[in-house]
Amino acid sequence: MIIDCHGHYTTAPAQLGAYREAQKTALAGDPDTVASKGTVRISDDELRESVEGAQLKLQRERGTDVTIFSPRASWMGHHVGNSSTSRAWTEHCNDLIYRLMQLYPANFIGAAQLPQSPGAPIDDCVRELERTVGELGFIGCNLNPDPTGGFFTGPPLGDRYWYPLYEKMCELEVPGMIHVSGACNTPYFQTTGSYYLSADTIAFMQLMQSSVFADFPELKLIIPHGGGAVPYHWGRFRGLADMLKLPPLSEAMMNNVFSDTCVYHQPGIDLLLDVIPLDNILFASEMVGAVRGIDPETGEYFDDTKRYIDNAARLTDAQRAQIFEGNTRRVFARFPANLK
Amino acid sequence: MIIDCHGHYTTAPAQLGAYREAQKTALAGDPDTVASKGTVRISDDELRESVEGAQLKLQRERGTDVTIFSPRASWMGHHVGNSSTSRAWTEHCNDLIYRLMQLYPANFIGAAQLPQSPGAPIDDCVRELERTVGELGFIGCNLNPDPTGGFFTGPPLGDRYWYPLYEKMCELEVPGMIHVSGACNTPYFQTTGSYYLSADTIAFMQLMQSSVFADFPELKLIIPHGGGAVPYHWGRFRGLADMLKLPPLSEAMMNNVFSDTCVYHQPGIDLLLDVIPLDNILFASEMVGAVRGIDPETGEYFDDTKRYIDNAARLTDAQRAQIFEGNTRRVFARFPANLK
Repeated sequence: MIIDCHGHYTTAPAQLGAYREAQKTALAGDPDTVASKGTVRISDDELRESVEGAQLKLQRERGTDVTIFSPRASWMGHHVGNSSTSRAWTEHCNDLIYRLMQLYPANFIGAAQLPQSPGAPIDDCVRELERTVGELGFIGCNLNPDPTGGFFTGPPLGDRYWYPLYEKMCELEVPGMIHVSGACNTPYFQTTGSYYLSADTIAFMQLMQSSVFADFPELKLIIPHGGGAVPYHWGRFRGLADMLKLPPLSEAMMNNVFSDTCVYHQPGIDLLLDVIPLDNILFASEMVGAVRGIDPETGEYFDDTKRYIDNAARLTDAQRAQIFEGNTRRVFARFPANLK
Repeated sequence: MIIDCHGHYTTAPAQLGAYREAQKTALAGDPDTVASKGTVRISDDELRESVEGAQLKLQRERGTDVTIFSPRASWMGHHVGNSSTSRAWTEHCNDLIYRLMQLYPANFIGAAQLPQSPGAPIDDCVRELERTVGELGFIGCNLNPDPTGGFFTGPPLGDRYWYPLYEKMCELEVPGMIHVSGACNTPYFQTTGSYYLSADTIAFMQLMQSSVFADFPELKLIIPHGGGAVPYHWGRFRGLADMLKLPPLSEAMMNNVFSDTCVYHQPGIDLLLDVIPLDNILFASEMVGAVRGIDPETGEYFDDTKRYIDNAARLTDAQRAQIFEGNTRRVFARFPANLK
């Protein structure tokens, strides 16, 4: 079985975007508007149509089986409005994922957006994690390390601010993918290039300098986009651990931090496989996502990452199976055992 | 000849730090203090002593010949005080580099710190570039893409704010290394890990989305630390160029953007050599810098990057010479032809 652990619902029907625009309009009138959840009317047929020509088509074409599926990352927009805005929006986004799981139980398993909001207590996130895991059957969540959308002024990942969420994640045996949303400061950051990759790298360094994994030995976090800049600079990070008198990365991080395979060319994947322990690599493509075109050098889609794993000469079939399935089942402990 | 194009004077005598502390003390009393240059008293013997056991020792041990040498990057601190603070501090830092060039003309060639200051006009930087190149014989400069020290609120590199500086760099035939200083927001960023690598990646993306190289076809910029996250994610950046309807990177960037080799392990260097055109790679180590320890996996210094180039099986000796010397002479057009 081939599990893609990183897919976002980027092709939702227009009603979802319209709901969000209505939120923004209300906030433009009064930034303190307390949002109520309201409704987003989308039929089952519209949901089917939104994925049949997109994620499902690509799953079939590329030969992957199931996607751990979460709301569109660049739309999480935790910086928009206040905590009530984020709560209402997040619940709708997660509810749509749940409905897709009901329609396509063999193709999609949910990972939750969290209703983060800069400066707000973490309690809402804990509650939404309980709801999505307990009531909707989700098996993971996306944790935004910079809910300000590019200003990096909130608490780092080692701060105790996050601890109630980490505690709940451990209790529920749910891993988190560290994933920012769209950048607000777009003349400076570009969302899917520089902002995503910078946030991944920043998150890794914050965790290195923290005591999070000493305090939560069971916590599992995935750094997406192939771990940002970290594997390419693995020597620098190993050397920095030494310079900063931290324990070696192999001891301090490798039970808890994982990288996905969203690296869109063969040499990058080969490097990832070369430096990161095999146990720490989970297959993913992030389709339909940041890069949707065809690589003129190969004639194949940039984000068809299964090809790079298939073509990696250093891997045995057993190792491929570990990346495609075994590691993901281990990290996502709630992945259904009967789904094969 | 082996030219290290990226070295900072990280071992200056204590008087330099004391000067800076005095500046900060004056600013604590009055943030609008207008700094006068004053003096930093350091003898030639003290200068010699500061490099004999450091950069010069490592040059000898590692078999490199000459370093393009600039003031300590993490100390540039453009966010401190006001433009007069930055001007006085920068002139002293550059003057010390000049004195080292006089003492060791075969070992050090200067690259300038610029007196940037958030929100200040770029004119001071143009003047200091003229002074250091015209009067002191420097051949390059360091351009800080985020003089706020981690808040990324200034104009991106494509903004016309920078154009008078780019114009002067082209006129003087002087390349720029894009290099941030120490991060202020240290709970969030760690300077030599996440901040440097993020800034490198952000700079590349800003340049991709700009018309800088259409407007300045002769401008040459070096992205240090192996190009940040870019080579590892070369497929993503090529794909983003396509998604954003930009010209291919090979056309739009490769006449103007270069990467150094400050990547501290063999697999990272191998990837760099694999994806970035040979013409765009300049040898560098950034010794004595961010990572000063010995890699337990190899028994050698992490930042002894010459070893990785020597050991790269894919390179011919002619290609090694191009990385060690030829490309750097081409990019740094003022590199002395008689220094061999």
